[in-house]
Amino acid sequence: MSRRSLHTPAPDAATLRARLHRARQAAADAGTDALLIAPGSDLRYLIGQAGGSFERLTTLVIPAGDAPPALVVPKLEFPGYSDVPTDDLGVDVITWVDGDDPYRLVADRLGKPGRVAVSDMMAALHVLALRDAVAGAEQALAGPVLRELRMRKDAAEIAALRKAGEAIDRVHARMGEWLRAGRTEAQVGADIAAAIVEEGHTEAEFVIVGSGPNGASPHHDVSDRVIEPGDVVVVDIGGPIAEGYNSDSTRTYAVGEPRDADVADTYAVLQRAQQAAVEAVCPGVTAHAVDAAARDIITEAGFGEQFIHRTGHGIGLDVHEEPYIVGGNDLPLEPGMAFSVEPGIYQAGRWGARIEDIVVVTSDGAEPLNTRPHELVVVGS
Amino acid sequence: MSRRSLHTPAPDAATLRARLHRARQAAADAGTDALLIAPGSDLRYLIGQAGGSFERLTTLVIPAGDAPPALVVPKLEFPGYSDVPTDDLGVDVITWVDGDDPYRLVADRLGKPGRVAVSDMMAALHVLALRDAVAGAEQALAGPVLRELRMRKDAAEIAALRKAGEAIDRVHARMGEWLRAGRTEAQVGADIAAAIVEEGHTEAEFVIVGSGPNGASPHHDVSDRVIEPGDVVVVDIGGPIAEGYNSDSTRTYAVGEPRDADVADTYAVLQRAQQAAVEAVCPGVTAHAVDAAARDIITEAGFGEQFIHRTGHGIGLDVHEEPYIVGGNDLPLEPGMAFSVEPGIYQAGRWGARIEDIVVVTSDGAEPLNTRPHELVVVGS
Repeated sequence: MSRRSLHTPAPDAATLRARLHRARQAAADAGTDALLIAPGSDLRYLIGQAGGSFERLTTLVIPAGDAPPALVVPKLEFPGYSDVPTDDLGVDVITWVDGDDPYRLVADRLGKPGRVAVSDMMAALHVLALRDAVAGAEQALAGPVLRELRMRKDAAEIAALRKAGEAIDRVHARMGEWLRAGRTEAQVGADIAAAIVEEGHTEAEFVIVGSGPNGASPHHDVSDRVIEPGDVVVVDIGGPIAEGYNSDSTRTYAVGEPRDADVADTYAVLQRAQQAAVEAVCPGVTAHAVDAAARDIITEAGFGEQFIHRTGHGIGLDVHEEPYIVGGNDLPLEPGMAFSVEPGIYQAGRWGARIEDIVVVTSDGAEPLNTRPHELVVVGS
Repeated sequence: MSRRSLHTPAPDAATLRARLHRARQAAADAGTDALLIAPGSDLRYLIGQAGGSFERLTTLVIPAGDAPPALVVPKLEFPGYSDVPTDDLGVDVITWVDGDDPYRLVADRLGKPGRVAVSDMMAALHVLALRDAVAGAEQALAGPVLRELRMRKDAAEIAALRKAGEAIDRVHARMGEWLRAGRTEAQVGADIAAAIVEEGHTEAEFVIVGSGPNGASPHHDVSDRVIEPGDVVVVDIGGPIAEGYNSDSTRTYAVGEPRDADVADTYAVLQRAQQAAVEAVCPGVTAHAVDAAARDIITEAGFGEQFIHRTGHGIGLDVHEEPYIVGGNDLPLEPGMAFSVEPGIYQAGRWGARIEDIVVVTSDGAEPLNTRPHELVVVGS
């Protein structure tokens, strides 16, 4: 009758207490009277447990002022939070049972707030019911508040991202075991998915094997297409480790000598672009500038129209989170920010290529968390 | 850079066309000018593809009037919808790229609506942005509209639920292979999870192994508790099959002779209660009455305080959906409705028991989709 909850390593109580404190301060700074946090990555970040997202309301109420936070949770689902050190965190627990009005419980806790922020991933079901229950309050998103915390990773978070990066690098190192002509993308993908778990992830969150023309579709996953000699193959893979932090790395392979004569020269441009973007990373540099570092090289080489997505996305407890490395994002980078650098060039109908590393901003540059070679790797045909 | 999308069996275009038509009618009947459907089960029900839920907006715009529906989708993610017969369905496709304002695209499509309903699971991120973009419209939930469609299953949906039920029954039939004293709940749960996939599910969505005192917590999942001789063990398991429909079945086991002297008599009450609730199911009977049929027997036997949840929940593309079999729900049952009947008795600190079958309402009663014996099954200790 229930979904599986997560029993996983969590930060210690002191770390969580500090995060809750910073969340309250950030809420106050943003003119928000309270944050309402639904199950998911935000909740895991703040109390060490992501919980599950169901039709029954669970929400962590974080007032901007001095009142203690409260976890409002169905009594049935509270055992899933038994690892949370609520006493140490100063978090009250308010359980409810079928027949109670949980939205009223939240409203009573809030008093008369002027502005309440709900977490970005809260389901509409709860968002609209809370809007009605907390009448008169402006409803906003908690994402802009929480990203100020979550996009600056501490040492333990970076260590977890590094561990995830090493795990996915081990999978890429084994690609020659699986990727060869005569097999379907789906067959190769199944082997990769198993290896992602074997090498230390809790699950294979995504497995893209884009061979030949499928490589030109950046969000392709796998298909029944049979891989042919001469195919260029984009392999973009990752998932979470037990700590909750994700890997995400792309390498491009060739099954024997590439069929298309333009692969080598085009790939060289991509490789230069990816390297330039990583080299551009430094505290104070904007996300926009990192995107431009890759995009300018690709555009100057005549492939601007074939680079059809942003250069990267932040990564942590979510695969996609702030900061987004995209044109127009004037956010200055800071030490501890972690994101992908993944330019691509896509030749519609023929082939595509992408190179993706996760990097962490250091005091004077970037530390790549993926270290597999960037060259087009030729595997057996 | 992307999550895996689903390549899975979908209903034919005629079925999907009829569902879209009924959705428009139901929206009009509810005084709603348009439905905005996010990726998830609602989307899969209507166009055969659940899509993925990301930070970039994807939504199916369904006007209540004669204007065609439109799928607003990031250009990068559109390949994940390539199996959708949009032409046959009369669905326009509107793609957008990073830098566009997708909320504006939705608003332009809608004109000046008075009332717009968003799907229950749409993320707050999109709900609030749509509220701002479609200024002046009342924002409501699409769930009450769509449940009128989704809770009445057609023959193919019932066949899929039946197939899922048979698959999970095969897992329960093998429980003696794994469940024995000296093993932890987590070890048993891992074996069960593998068998759930082996027997025909695409994943093990949930695995509850509640041994001894843990069985008294209905939403327990698994723990490192070592199972002891004499334990009563609640095993509640299920997941989706390729068609997207879910299984969900609970049986209660004893590892050798039960330690607690009250198990046999209490379990007999539970078994009578579950049977009475199934026998109460008939078109025209209310969900409330089915809940009461189980609850009255348990209460009369003195265990009312130990039956701490509703009697059941609807099931289909979601594990939990309408109709909920709960006190106060005056919904009259109709043929084609499918839901769990799962009373439980929980003796805090000692043991718990639950019996759960999925049933489908027929023209004159209920067809159980789970057929394993209801007795307390003794496995090797």
